[in-house]
Amino acid sequence: MMTAGVLTLSDKGSQGLREDVSGAVIKEILTRHGIATGQYAVIPDDETTIADTLRQWCDNSSLSLIVTTGGTGLSPRDVTPEATLAVIEKRVPGMEEVMRAESLKKTPHAMISRAVVGVRGSTLIINLPGSPRAARECLMAVLPALGHALEKLGGDTRDCAQ
Amino acid sequence: MMTAGVLTLSDKGSQGLREDVSGAVIKEILTRHGIATGQYAVIPDDETTIADTLRQWCDNSSLSLIVTTGGTGLSPRDVTPEATLAVIEKRVPGMEEVMRAESLKKTPHAMISRAVVGVRGSTLIINLPGSPRAARECLMAVLPALGHALEKLGGDTRDCAQ
Amino acid sequence: MMTAGVLTLSDKGSQGLREDVSGAVIKEILTRHGIATGQYAVIPDDETTIADTLRQWCDNSSLSLIVTTGGTGLSPRDVTPEATLAVIEKRVPGMEEVMRAESLKKTPHAMISRAVVGVRGSTLIINLPGSPRAARECLMAVLPALGHALEKLGGDTRDCAQ
Repeated sequence: MMTAGVLTLSDKGSQGLREDVSGAVIKEILTRHGIATGQYAVIPDDETTIADTLRQWCDNSSLSLIVTTGGTGLSPRDVTPEATLAVIEKRVPGMEEVMRAESLKKTPHAMISRAVVGVRGSTLIINLPGSPRAARECLMAVLPALGHALEKLGGDTRDCAQ
Repeated sequence: MMTAGVLTLSDKGSQGLREDVSGAVIKEILTRHGIATGQYAVIPDDETTIADTLRQWCDNSSLSLIVTTGGTGLSPRDVTPEATLAVIEKRVPGMEEVMRAESLKKTPHAMISRAVVGVRGSTLIINLPGSPRAARECLMAVLPALGHALEKLGGDTRDCAQ
Repeated sequence: MMTAGVLTLSDKGSQGLREDVSGAVIKEILTRHGIATGQYAVIPDDETTIADTLRQWCDNSSLSLIVTTGGTGLSPRDVTPEATLAVIEKRVPGMEEVMRAESLKKTPHAMISRAVVGVRGSTLIINLPGSPRAARECLMAVLPALGHALEKLGGDTRDCAQ
Protein backbone atom coordinates (compact mmCIF):
# COMPACT_ATOMS: atom_id res chain seq x y z
CA MET A 1 0.00 0.00 0.00
CA MET A 2 1.27 3.46 -0.88
CA THR A 3 1.75 6.02 1.88
CA ALA A 4 1.27 9.79 1.74
CA GLY A 5 2.06 12.77 3.93
CA VAL A 6 -0.57 15.46 4.39
CA LEU A 7 0.79 18.89 5.29
CA THR A 8 -1.59 21.72 6.14
CA LEU A 9 -0.19 25.26 5.98
CA SER A 10 -2.15 27.62 8.20
CA ASP A 11 -1.02 30.20 10.75
CA LYS A 12 -4.37 29.93 12.54
CA GLY A 13 -4.55 26.13 12.28
CA SER A 14 -1.06 25.70 13.72
CA GLN A 15 -2.15 27.69 16.80
CA GLY A 16 -5.22 25.52 17.28
CA LEU A 17 -7.48 28.40 16.23
CA ARG A 18 -9.03 26.60 13.27
CA GLU A 19 -10.10 23.06 12.55
CA ASP A 20 -8.21 21.48 9.63
CA VAL A 21 -11.14 20.56 7.42
CA SER A 22 -9.06 20.50 4.22
CA GLY A 23 -6.53 18.08 5.70
CA ALA A 24 -9.37 15.75 6.70
CA VAL A 25 -10.90 15.98 3.22
CA ILE A 26 -7.58 15.08 1.58
CA LYS A 27 -6.94 12.12 3.91
CA GLU A 28 -10.43 10.80 3.21
CA ILE A 29 -10.00 11.01 -0.59
CA LEU A 30 -6.56 9.36 -0.48
CA THR A 31 -7.80 6.52 1.76
CA ARG A 32 -10.65 5.88 -0.64
CA HIS A 33 -8.05 5.52 -3.41
CA GLY A 34 -5.87 3.09 -1.50
CA ILE A 35 -3.28 5.55 -0.16
CA ALA A 36 -2.64 5.58 3.60
CA THR A 37 -1.65 8.72 5.52
CA GLY A 38 1.77 8.09 7.06
CA GLN A 39 2.61 11.65 8.09
CA TYR A 40 0.36 14.56 9.03
CA ALA A 41 1.08 18.03 10.40
CA VAL A 42 -0.39 21.52 10.59
CA ILE A 43 2.36 24.14 10.50
CA PRO A 44 2.50 27.94 10.07
CA ASP A 45 2.96 29.74 6.72
CA ASP A 46 6.72 30.08 7.13
CA GLU A 47 8.79 29.34 4.01
CA THR A 48 11.80 27.83 5.82
CA THR A 49 9.67 25.64 8.08
CA ILE A 50 7.65 24.37 5.12
CA ALA A 51 10.75 23.61 3.03
CA ASP A 52 12.44 21.86 5.98
CA THR A 53 9.37 19.71 6.62
CA LEU A 54 9.08 18.75 2.92
CA ARG A 55 12.77 17.81 2.78
CA GLN A 56 12.56 15.73 5.96
CA TRP A 57 9.42 13.90 4.85
CA CYS A 58 10.86 13.17 1.39
CA ASP A 59 14.32 12.12 2.51
CA ASN A 60 13.63 10.22 5.75
CA SER A 61 10.22 8.65 5.22
CA SER A 62 9.11 6.20 2.56
CA LEU A 63 6.31 8.45 1.30
CA SER A 64 5.26 8.12 -2.34
CA LEU A 65 3.30 11.35 -2.14
CA ILE A 66 3.04 14.57 -0.10
CA VAL A 67 -0.10 16.66 -0.46
CA THR A 68 -0.05 20.18 0.97
CA THR A 69 -3.05 22.46 1.46
CA GLY A 70 -2.98 26.22 1.92
CA GLY A 71 -0.66 29.11 1.18
CA THR A 72 -0.96 29.05 -2.61
CA GLY A 73 -2.54 32.49 -3.17
CA LEU A 74 -1.24 36.06 -3.30
CA SER A 75 -1.39 37.13 0.36
CA PRO A 76 2.01 38.14 1.76
CA ARG A 77 2.02 34.98 3.96
CA ASP A 78 1.28 32.65 0.99
CA VAL A 79 4.66 30.99 0.44
CA THR A 80 3.91 27.30 -0.11
CA PRO A 81 4.81 27.41 -3.83
CA GLU A 82 8.16 29.08 -3.08
CA ALA A 83 8.98 26.49 -0.37
CA THR A 84 8.02 23.70 -2.76
CA LEU A 85 10.08 25.12 -5.64
CA ALA A 86 13.07 25.27 -3.27
CA VAL A 87 12.99 21.50 -2.62
CA ILE A 88 11.84 19.84 -5.86
CA GLU A 89 14.20 18.49 -8.52
CA LYS A 90 11.62 18.12 -11.30
CA ARG A 91 8.48 20.19 -11.88
CA VAL A 92 5.25 18.73 -13.28
CA PRO A 93 3.50 21.74 -14.86
CA GLY A 94 0.80 19.64 -16.50
CA MET A 95 -0.73 18.72 -13.16
CA GLU A 96 -0.65 22.39 -12.14
CA GLU A 97 -2.42 23.39 -15.35
CA VAL A 98 -5.09 20.71 -15.00
CA MET A 99 -5.90 21.77 -11.42
CA ARG A 100 -6.20 25.43 -12.39
CA ALA A 101 -8.31 24.63 -15.45
CA GLU A 102 -10.70 22.67 -13.23
CA SER A 103 -10.96 25.46 -10.63
CA LEU A 104 -11.43 28.09 -13.34
CA LYS A 105 -14.70 26.40 -14.27
CA LYS A 106 -15.98 27.55 -10.86
CA THR A 107 -14.40 30.98 -10.40
CA PRO A 108 -12.03 33.34 -12.25
CA HIS A 109 -10.21 33.82 -8.91
CA ALA A 110 -8.63 30.42 -9.56
CA MET A 111 -6.18 32.10 -11.92
CA ILE A 112 -4.23 33.45 -8.93
CA SER A 113 -3.62 29.98 -7.48
CA ARG A 114 0.07 29.28 -7.76
CA ALA A 115 0.00 25.63 -6.67
CA VAL A 116 3.15 23.74 -7.67
CA VAL A 117 3.56 20.03 -8.42
CA GLY A 118 7.01 18.49 -8.44
CA VAL A 119 9.28 15.62 -7.53
CA ARG A 120 11.97 15.27 -4.88
CA GLY A 121 13.74 11.91 -5.00
CA SER A 122 10.94 9.40 -5.50
CA THR A 123 8.25 11.50 -3.77
CA LEU A 124 5.64 13.49 -5.66
CA ILE A 125 4.66 16.77 -3.97
CA ILE A 126 1.28 18.31 -4.83
CA ASN A 127 0.23 21.74 -3.55
CA LEU A 128 -3.52 22.25 -3.13
CA PRO A 129 -5.36 25.47 -2.28
CA GLY A 130 -6.47 26.03 1.32
CA SER A 131 -10.25 25.95 1.06
CA PRO A 132 -11.81 22.48 1.48
CA ARG A 133 -13.85 22.83 -1.70
CA ALA A 134 -10.94 23.97 -3.87
CA ALA A 135 -8.58 21.40 -2.33
CA ARG A 136 -11.06 18.62 -3.11
CA GLU A 137 -11.70 19.71 -6.70
CA CYS A 138 -7.97 20.11 -7.47
CA LEU A 139 -7.07 16.73 -5.96
CA MET A 140 -9.88 15.05 -7.90
CA ALA A 141 -8.56 16.69 -11.10
CA VAL A 142 -5.15 14.99 -10.87
CA LEU A 143 -6.37 11.63 -9.55
CA PRO A 144 -6.82 10.10 -13.05
CA ALA A 145 -3.03 10.30 -13.57
CA LEU A 146 -1.89 9.87 -9.96
CA GLY A 147 -1.50 6.08 -9.89
CA HIS A 148 0.48 6.09 -13.15
CA ALA A 149 2.68 8.96 -11.90
CA LEU A 150 3.51 7.18 -8.62
CA GLU A 151 4.29 3.91 -10.43
CA LYS A 152 6.70 5.68 -12.77
CA LEU A 153 8.34 7.53 -9.88
CA GLY A 154 8.74 4.23 -8.07
CA GLY A 155 10.84 2.97 -10.95
CA ASP A 156 8.35 1.09 -13.16
CA THR A 157 10.25 0.96 -16.46
CA ARG A 158 7.59 -0.49 -18.74
CA ASP A 159 6.97 1.62 -21.84
CA CYS A 160 4.26 4.23 -21.64
CA ALA A 161 1.45 3.88 -24.13
CA GLN A 162 1.43 7.68 -24.06
CA MET B 1 -8.00 54.62 -5.56
CA MET B 2 -5.42 52.14 -6.79
CA THR B 3 -2.54 53.32 -8.94
CA ALA B 4 -0.76 51.54 -11.78
CA GLY B 5 2.37 52.03 -13.84
CA VAL B 6 2.21 51.51 -17.60
CA LEU B 7 5.52 50.59 -19.22
CA THR B 8 5.77 50.30 -23.00
CA LEU B 9 8.74 48.41 -24.41
CA SER B 10 9.55 49.49 -27.93
CA ASP B 11 12.82 50.44 -29.60
CA LYS B 12 10.94 52.52 -32.18
CA GLY B 13 8.54 54.03 -29.65
CA SER B 14 11.37 55.13 -27.35
CA GLN B 15 12.92 57.06 -30.26
CA GLY B 16 9.65 58.80 -31.02
CA LEU B 17 9.26 56.81 -34.25
CA ARG B 18 5.96 55.19 -33.30
CA GLU B 19 2.88 56.30 -31.43
CA ASP B 20 2.22 54.23 -28.29
CA VAL B 21 -1.28 53.04 -29.09
CA SER B 22 -1.07 50.00 -26.78
CA GLY B 23 -0.07 52.12 -23.79
CA ALA B 24 -3.07 54.39 -24.43
CA VAL B 25 -5.39 51.37 -24.72
CA ILE B 26 -4.14 49.99 -21.40
CA LYS B 27 -4.50 53.32 -19.56
CA GLU B 28 -8.04 53.69 -20.87
CA ILE B 29 -9.08 50.19 -19.72
CA LEU B 30 -7.50 50.66 -16.29
CA THR B 31 -9.18 54.05 -15.79
CA ARG B 32 -12.53 52.55 -16.68
CA HIS B 33 -11.93 49.98 -13.93
CA GLY B 34 -11.00 52.54 -11.27
CA ILE B 35 -7.22 52.30 -11.53
CA ALA B 36 -5.28 55.54 -12.11
CA THR B 37 -2.02 55.70 -14.06
CA GLY B 38 0.69 56.96 -11.70
CA GLN B 39 3.73 56.17 -13.81
CA TYR B 40 4.16 55.92 -17.57
CA ALA B 41 7.19 55.47 -19.79
CA VAL B 42 8.23 54.20 -23.22
CA ILE B 43 11.67 52.61 -23.11
CA PRO B 44 13.79 50.48 -25.46
CA ASP B 45 13.87 46.66 -25.47
CA ASP B 46 16.92 46.46 -23.24
CA GLU B 47 16.80 43.82 -20.51
CA THR B 48 18.79 45.76 -17.89
CA THR B 49 16.86 49.00 -18.45
CA ILE B 50 13.54 47.18 -18.20
CA ALA B 51 14.53 45.35 -15.00
CA ASP B 52 15.86 48.56 -13.43
CA THR B 53 12.66 50.43 -14.25
CA LEU B 54 10.47 47.65 -12.83
CA ARG B 55 12.53 47.56 -9.62
CA GLN B 56 12.41 51.33 -9.19
CA TRP B 57 8.67 51.53 -9.82
CA CYS B 58 7.95 48.64 -7.43
CA ASP B 59 10.26 49.74 -4.63
CA ASN B 60 9.92 53.54 -4.67
CA SER B 61 6.36 54.15 -5.81
CA SER B 62 3.13 53.05 -4.20
CA LEU B 63 1.94 51.22 -7.29
CA SER B 64 -0.42 48.26 -6.85
CA LEU B 65 0.12 47.19 -10.44
CA ILE B 66 2.54 47.54 -13.33
CA VAL B 67 1.35 46.64 -16.81
CA THR B 68 3.97 46.28 -19.54
CA THR B 69 3.31 46.00 -23.27
CA GLY B 70 5.70 44.69 -25.89
CA GLY B 71 8.75 42.46 -26.09
CA THR B 72 7.04 39.17 -25.24
CA GLY B 73 7.66 37.28 -28.48
CA LEU B 74 10.60 35.41 -29.99
CA SER B 75 12.52 38.15 -31.78
CA PRO B 76 16.09 38.56 -30.53
CA ARG B 77 15.13 41.95 -28.96
CA ASP B 78 12.11 40.49 -27.10
CA VAL B 79 13.38 40.35 -23.51
CA THR B 80 10.50 41.64 -21.37
CA PRO B 81 9.77 38.20 -19.84
CA GLU B 82 13.43 37.74 -18.88
CA ALA B 83 13.59 41.22 -17.28
CA THR B 84 10.36 40.49 -15.40
CA LEU B 85 11.56 37.07 -14.20
CA ALA B 86 14.69 38.77 -12.87
CA VAL B 87 12.73 41.08 -10.55
CA ILE B 88 9.69 39.09 -9.36
CA GLU B 89 9.58 37.11 -6.12
CA LYS B 90 6.44 35.10 -6.90
CA ARG B 91 5.16 33.99 -10.28
CA VAL B 92 1.45 33.77 -11.14
CA PRO B 93 1.31 31.19 -13.97
CA GLY B 94 -2.49 30.99 -13.96
CA MET B 95 -2.83 34.54 -15.26
CA GLU B 96 -0.26 33.77 -17.98
CA GLU B 97 -2.20 30.67 -19.02
CA VAL B 98 -5.53 32.49 -19.12
CA MET B 99 -4.10 35.25 -21.34
CA ARG B 100 -2.59 32.76 -23.78
CA ALA B 101 -5.75 30.66 -23.87
CA GLU B 102 -7.74 33.78 -24.76
CA SER B 103 -5.32 34.83 -27.51
CA LEU B 104 -5.19 31.30 -28.91
CA LYS B 105 -8.88 31.62 -29.74
CA LYS B 106 -7.83 34.24 -32.30
CA THR B 107 -4.54 32.91 -33.67
CA PRO B 108 -2.19 29.94 -33.18
CA HIS B 109 0.67 32.45 -33.14
CA ALA B 110 -0.38 33.25 -29.56
CA MET B 111 1.44 30.14 -28.41
CA ILE B 112 4.77 31.95 -28.79
CA SER B 113 3.76 34.75 -26.41
CA ARG B 114 5.94 34.41 -23.34
CA ALA B 115 4.20 37.06 -21.20
CA VAL B 116 4.99 36.68 -17.48
CA VAL B 117 2.84 37.65 -14.49
CA GLY B 118 4.42 37.96 -11.06
CA VAL B 119 4.77 39.83 -7.80
CA ARG B 120 7.53 42.03 -6.42
CA GLY B 121 6.84 43.26 -2.90
CA SER B 122 3.18 44.27 -2.98
CA THR B 123 3.12 45.13 -6.70
CA LEU B 124 1.64 42.85 -9.35
CA ILE B 125 3.49 42.95 -12.70
CA ILE B 126 1.61 41.87 -15.82
CA ASN B 127 3.32 41.54 -19.21
CA LEU B 128 1.07 42.09 -22.23
CA PRO B 129 1.94 41.59 -25.92
CA GLY B 130 2.85 44.63 -28.00
CA SER B 131 -0.01 44.86 -30.46
CA PRO B 132 -2.98 46.99 -29.30
CA ARG B 133 -5.48 44.25 -30.09
CA ALA B 134 -3.55 41.48 -28.30
CA ALA B 135 -2.74 43.75 -25.34
CA ARG B 136 -6.42 44.60 -24.93
CA GLU B 137 -7.65 41.00 -25.17
CA CYS B 138 -5.04 39.73 -22.69
CA LEU B 139 -5.76 42.51 -20.17
CA MET B 140 -9.50 41.87 -20.45
CA ALA B 141 -8.84 38.15 -19.81
CA VAL B 142 -7.28 38.75 -16.38
CA LEU B 143 -9.59 41.59 -15.29
CA PRO B 144 -12.13 39.23 -13.62
CA ALA B 145 -9.50 38.27 -11.02
CA LEU B 146 -7.54 41.53 -10.90
CA GLY B 147 -9.40 43.27 -8.08
CA HIS B 148 -9.23 40.18 -5.88
CA ALA B 149 -5.52 39.72 -6.64
CA LEU B 150 -4.67 43.33 -5.74
CA GLU B 151 -6.68 43.15 -2.49
CA LYS B 152 -4.82 40.00 -1.43
CA LEU B 153 -1.47 41.54 -2.34
CA GLY B 154 -2.38 44.60 -0.29
CA GLY B 155 -2.72 42.38 2.77
CA ASP B 156 -6.44 41.56 2.92
CA THR B 157 -6.43 38.49 5.18
CA ARG B 158 -10.05 37.43 4.91
CA ASP B 159 -10.49 33.80 3.88
CA CYS B 160 -10.86 33.11 0.18
CA ALA B 161 -14.04 31.39 -0.86
CA GLN B 162 -11.87 29.71 -3.45
CA MET C 1 15.51 25.66 -46.63
CA MET C 2 15.48 25.43 -42.84
CA THR C 3 17.43 22.69 -41.13
CA ALA C 4 16.57 20.80 -37.93
CA GLY C 5 18.31 18.43 -35.57
CA VAL C 6 16.44 15.35 -34.35
CA LEU C 7 17.68 13.98 -31.02
CA THR C 8 16.23 10.74 -29.66
CA LEU C 9 16.75 10.03 -25.95
CA SER C 10 16.60 6.34 -25.20
CA ASP C 11 18.86 4.08 -23.17
CA LYS C 12 17.70 1.06 -25.18
CA GLY C 13 17.81 2.86 -28.53
CA SER C 14 21.38 4.08 -27.94
CA GLN C 15 22.48 0.47 -27.41
CA GLY C 16 20.83 -0.63 -30.63
CA LEU C 17 18.15 -2.55 -28.70
CA ARG C 18 15.22 -0.60 -30.10
CA GLU C 19 14.35 0.88 -33.48
CA ASP C 20 13.89 4.67 -33.36
CA VAL C 21 10.37 4.89 -34.73
CA SER C 22 9.66 8.30 -33.12
CA GLY C 23 12.76 9.86 -34.67
CA ALA C 24 11.67 8.58 -38.09
CA VAL C 25 8.14 9.96 -37.57
CA ILE C 26 9.53 13.39 -36.65
CA LYS C 27 11.90 13.54 -39.63
CA GLU C 28 9.05 12.59 -41.95
CA ILE C 29 6.73 15.32 -40.60
CA LEU C 30 9.47 17.96 -40.75
CA THR C 31 10.41 17.02 -44.33
CA ARG C 32 6.78 17.30 -45.39
CA HIS C 33 6.80 20.85 -43.94
CA GLY C 34 9.95 21.91 -45.76
CA ILE C 35 12.46 21.38 -42.94
CA ALA C 36 15.49 19.18 -43.67
CA THR C 37 17.18 17.03 -41.01
CA GLY C 38 20.77 18.25 -40.65
CA GLN C 39 21.68 16.40 -37.47
CA TYR C 40 20.40 13.15 -36.02
CA ALA C 41 21.47 11.07 -33.03
CA VAL C 42 20.15 8.50 -30.57
CA ILE C 43 21.78 8.96 -27.16
CA PRO C 44 21.17 7.61 -23.63
CA ASP C 45 19.02 9.34 -21.00
CA ASP C 46 21.97 11.06 -19.35
CA GLU C 47 21.42 14.71 -18.37
CA THR C 48 24.98 15.91 -19.01
CA THR C 49 25.24 14.14 -22.38
CA ILE C 50 21.90 15.55 -23.49
CA ALA C 51 22.78 19.11 -22.42
CA ASP C 52 26.21 18.88 -24.09
CA THR C 53 24.67 17.66 -27.35
CA LEU C 54 22.03 20.42 -27.33
CA ARG C 55 24.70 23.08 -26.69
CA GLN C 56 26.95 21.75 -29.46
CA TRP C 57 24.14 21.51 -32.00
CA CYS C 58 22.88 25.02 -31.16
CA ASP C 59 26.25 26.72 -31.06
CA ASN C 60 28.19 25.00 -33.86
CA SER C 61 25.53 24.12 -36.43
CA SER C 62 23.18 26.37 -38.31
CA LEU C 63 20.07 24.60 -37.06
CA SER C 64 16.84 26.60 -36.80
CA LEU C 65 15.23 23.87 -34.75
CA ILE C 66 16.06 20.90 -32.55
CA VAL C 67 13.34 18.37 -31.83
CA THR C 68 13.96 15.84 -29.07
CA THR C 69 11.89 12.74 -28.35
CA GLY C 70 11.85 10.75 -25.12
CA GLY C 71 12.69 11.27 -21.46
CA THR C 72 9.89 13.71 -20.62
CA GLY C 73 7.98 11.64 -18.05
CA LEU C 74 8.45 10.83 -14.37
CA SER C 75 10.73 7.77 -14.45
CA PRO C 76 14.02 8.31 -12.62
CA ARG C 77 15.88 8.27 -15.99
CA ASP C 78 13.57 10.91 -17.55
CA VAL C 79 15.81 14.00 -17.55
CA THR C 80 15.30 15.61 -20.97
CA PRO C 81 13.38 18.61 -19.53
CA GLU C 82 16.13 19.28 -16.97
CA ALA C 83 18.85 19.09 -19.65
CA THR C 84 16.84 21.42 -21.86
CA LEU C 85 16.20 23.92 -19.05
CA ALA C 86 19.95 23.97 -18.40
CA VAL C 87 20.76 25.19 -21.93
CA ILE C 88 17.89 27.47 -22.98
CA GLU C 89 17.91 31.25 -22.56
CA LYS C 90 14.20 31.82 -23.14
CA ARG C 91 11.31 29.48 -22.37
CA VAL C 92 8.19 29.22 -24.54
CA PRO C 93 5.51 27.92 -22.12
CA GLY C 94 2.67 28.43 -24.59
CA MET C 95 3.95 25.70 -26.89
CA GLU C 96 4.32 23.38 -23.90
CA GLU C 97 0.73 24.09 -22.84
CA VAL C 98 -0.66 23.52 -26.33
CA MET C 99 1.09 20.16 -26.64
CA ARG C 100 -0.18 18.97 -23.27
CA ALA C 101 -3.71 20.20 -23.97
CA GLU C 102 -3.69 18.20 -27.21
CA SER C 103 -2.41 15.01 -25.55
CA LEU C 104 -4.89 15.39 -22.67
CA LYS C 105 -7.70 14.92 -25.20
CA LYS C 106 -6.42 11.34 -25.60
CA THR C 107 -5.34 10.37 -22.08
CA PRO C 108 -5.16 11.90 -18.58
CA HIS C 109 -1.63 10.47 -18.34
CA ALA C 110 -0.55 13.38 -20.55
CA MET C 111 -0.57 15.63 -17.49
CA ILE C 112 2.73 14.10 -16.35
CA SER C 113 4.53 15.04 -19.58
CA ARG C 114 7.09 17.68 -18.67
CA ALA C 115 8.18 18.56 -22.20
CA VAL C 116 9.96 21.93 -22.40
CA VAL C 117 10.14 24.36 -25.33
CA GLY C 118 12.78 27.08 -25.34
CA VAL C 119 15.36 29.05 -27.26
CA ARG C 120 19.15 28.97 -27.23
CA GLY C 121 20.72 31.60 -29.47
CA SER C 122 18.63 31.45 -32.62
CA THR C 123 17.65 27.78 -32.28
CA LEU C 124 14.25 26.64 -31.03
CA ILE C 125 14.35 23.45 -28.95
CA ILE C 126 11.16 21.38 -28.67
CA ASN C 127 10.91 18.36 -26.38
CA LEU C 128 8.43 15.68 -27.50
CA PRO C 129 7.33 12.56 -25.59
CA GLY C 130 8.94 9.24 -26.47
CA SER C 131 6.05 7.27 -27.95
CA PRO C 132 5.60 7.66 -31.72
CA ARG C 133 1.90 8.49 -31.36
CA ALA C 134 2.39 11.12 -28.64
CA ALA C 135 5.43 12.60 -30.41
CA ARG C 136 3.42 12.97 -33.61
CA GLU C 137 0.37 14.54 -31.95
CA CYS C 138 2.49 17.03 -29.96
CA LEU C 139 4.54 18.06 -32.99
CA MET C 140 1.37 18.52 -35.05
CA ALA C 141 -0.05 20.72 -32.25
CA VAL C 142 2.75 23.29 -32.49
CA LEU C 143 3.14 23.20 -36.28
CA PRO C 144 0.60 26.03 -36.89
CA ALA C 145 2.95 28.47 -35.10
CA LEU C 146 6.29 26.89 -35.99
CA GLY C 147 7.02 28.78 -39.21
CA HIS C 148 6.22 32.12 -37.57
CA ALA C 149 8.35 31.25 -34.53
CA LEU C 150 11.38 30.30 -36.64
CA GLU C 151 11.07 33.47 -38.75
CA LYS C 152 11.02 35.65 -35.63
CA LEU C 153 13.98 33.79 -34.13
CA GLY C 154 15.86 34.29 -37.38
CA GLY C 155 15.53 38.04 -36.92
CA ASP C 156 12.45 38.96 -38.96
CA THR C 157 11.55 42.34 -37.46
CA ARG C 158 8.24 43.00 -39.15
CA ASP C 159 5.45 43.82 -36.70
CA CYS C 160 3.33 40.94 -35.52
CA ALA C 161 -0.36 41.19 -36.20
CA GLN C 162 -0.75 39.37 -32.91
